[in-house]
Amino acid sequence: MELLSTNVCFNGEHRRYRHHSAALDCEMEFAVFLPPAAIGSESRTVPVLYWLSGLTCTDQNFMQKAGALKRAAELGLAIVCPDTSPRGLGLPGEDDSYDFGSGAGFYINATRQPWAPHYRMYDYVVKEIPQLVESNLPVTEERSISGHSMGGHGALIAALKNPGHYQSVSAFAPIAHPSACPWGKKAFEGYLGSDTAAWEEWDTTLLIPGAKERLPLLIDQGTADNFLEEQLYPEALADACEKVHHPIHLHMRRGYDHSYFFIASFIDEHLDHHARALGLLR
Amino acid sequence: MELLSTNVCFNGEHRRYRHHSAALDCEMEFAVFLPPAAIGSESRTVPVLYWLSGLTCTDQNFMQKAGALKRAAELGLAIVCPDTSPRGLGLPGEDDSYDFGSGAGFYINATRQPWAPHYRMYDYVVKEIPQLVESNLPVTEERSISGHSMGGHGALIAALKNPGHYQSVSAFAPIAHPSACPWGKKAFEGYLGSDTAAWEEWDTTLLIPGAKERLPLLIDQGTADNFLEEQLYPEALADACEKVHHPIHLHMRRGYDHSYFFIASFIDEHLDHHARALGLLR
Repeated sequence: MELLSTNVCFNGEHRRYRHHSAALDCEMEFAVFLPPAAIGSESRTVPVLYWLSGLTCTDQNFMQKAGALKRAAELGLAIVCPDTSPRGLGLPGEDDSYDFGSGAGFYINATRQPWAPHYRMYDYVVKEIPQLVESNLPVTEERSISGHSMGGHGALIAALKNPGHYQSVSAFAPIAHPSACPWGKKAFEGYLGSDTAAWEEWDTTLLIPGAKERLPLLIDQGTADNFLEEQLYPEALADACEKVHHPIHLHMRRGYDHSYFFIASFIDEHLDHHARALGLLR
Repeated sequence: MELLSTNVCFNGEHRRYRHHSAALDCEMEFAVFLPPAAIGSESRTVPVLYWLSGLTCTDQNFMQKAGALKRAAELGLAIVCPDTSPRGLGLPGEDDSYDFGSGAGFYINATRQPWAPHYRMYDYVVKEIPQLVESNLPVTEERSISGHSMGGHGALIAALKNPGHYQSVSAFAPIAHPSACPWGKKAFEGYLGSDTAAWEEWDTTLLIPGAKERLPLLIDQGTADNFLEEQLYPEALADACEKVHHPIHLHMRRGYDHSYFFIASFIDEHLDHHARALGLLR
């Protein structure tokens, strides 16, 4: 784990690291925010919020644009932002479109060639990154997870498929039913093949009925989001939750769009949600 | 004034506009944040903080990265971010370096060709933009000004040269004595020529002795700023202030660098400083 840069921020530290990922078989970069409580002479270990970003993003979008670090510093919450895919592998077509390949790993484990050996972002964010962070940084094994759009999908499937692994989960404008929307269909067909049975284990709406843990879902969605109708399907998820009494708090935010201006407006509420689950806030 | 986009943010609105600038004789884009108090059915006019960004920035860096909009929304403060230079004029050399020409207008009025007809960013930010904004948006003529690096220089000279025009001024890591540092020398020589007598009216440290108004200067500066020694010279400014009893609050922030992570960490203190001067906060 090679330290690339450090920025002091709210008396904590924003750091970027590079490491070799075994899950992805390539070099990866990620960002971490350590709150003041975790650094310095009187420091202690702190719990972590894992944030998964959306299409085209790197580890930096959330750190620079979400306005989350002030509240995270106050709460004593670390934040870890992985990248959204392997990069620079030279696979055919990896840079041809914004919604497949580079910047679009979809947080699943690919089974089709040539993606299968590298595009295993699910294993990377659920297993490898937490192990790496927990072994090398002053953090506990208490974890929460959140994300935006493709990353909201990633956060929700990570939590639903791993009972007990996360203390809480939330999402902003998640791709809530990917096997039914154009972004998800393109990604799942490319990474998993055309047998839609193989898609079901990566679709939040389809995972809800069989979820082993009824961890409440906190979701914020802007009503002026350009992708709401065609790509996101929060109602399908809400319907699935209702059928099996899976707790969901779906906040439809009037006039808000898909941008980080939307995320910034409500991120503190999400941080507080996770902080309560992690025992940082009553 | 053509509206390019709107994002709802903290129940206010972030908007981008394009207009023809008479001062610069070209098309320009700028951004504005209107707090909730200024929009909607019960709206009123609100005062404005003008923010001048640093080298290479556009109107978007501050809006996306400073984390300022939450507090601005609470205070009822509008924020206007101009661009940092004319763009796309096709002048010889305008895109050759990051510290001269595009993205590097230095908030002065050029007198040398070919820059003189267009590079009049001082007139643009001090006169044209406030007139435009005050004529077209729900804002008052109560103004404050702040900025970062090159924009900190711009904010300080704008305030010092225009007694009564601004209620308050502040800066993050300003180029405090440009006629003595490499960035400033390059810009002043290019835009004004080699006669250094013509540089003095654009240099904060040199303007202090003759300032007609002793408006307090609030300045934050990181001690780990890579540009501190070679480019910024806050001590020269502090010395000049001391000699004539010009009030200055220079906060040296231990470990902080030149980035927006630094600005984000202290922007709320600056917003509160301006809000007090503008009557929004006691």
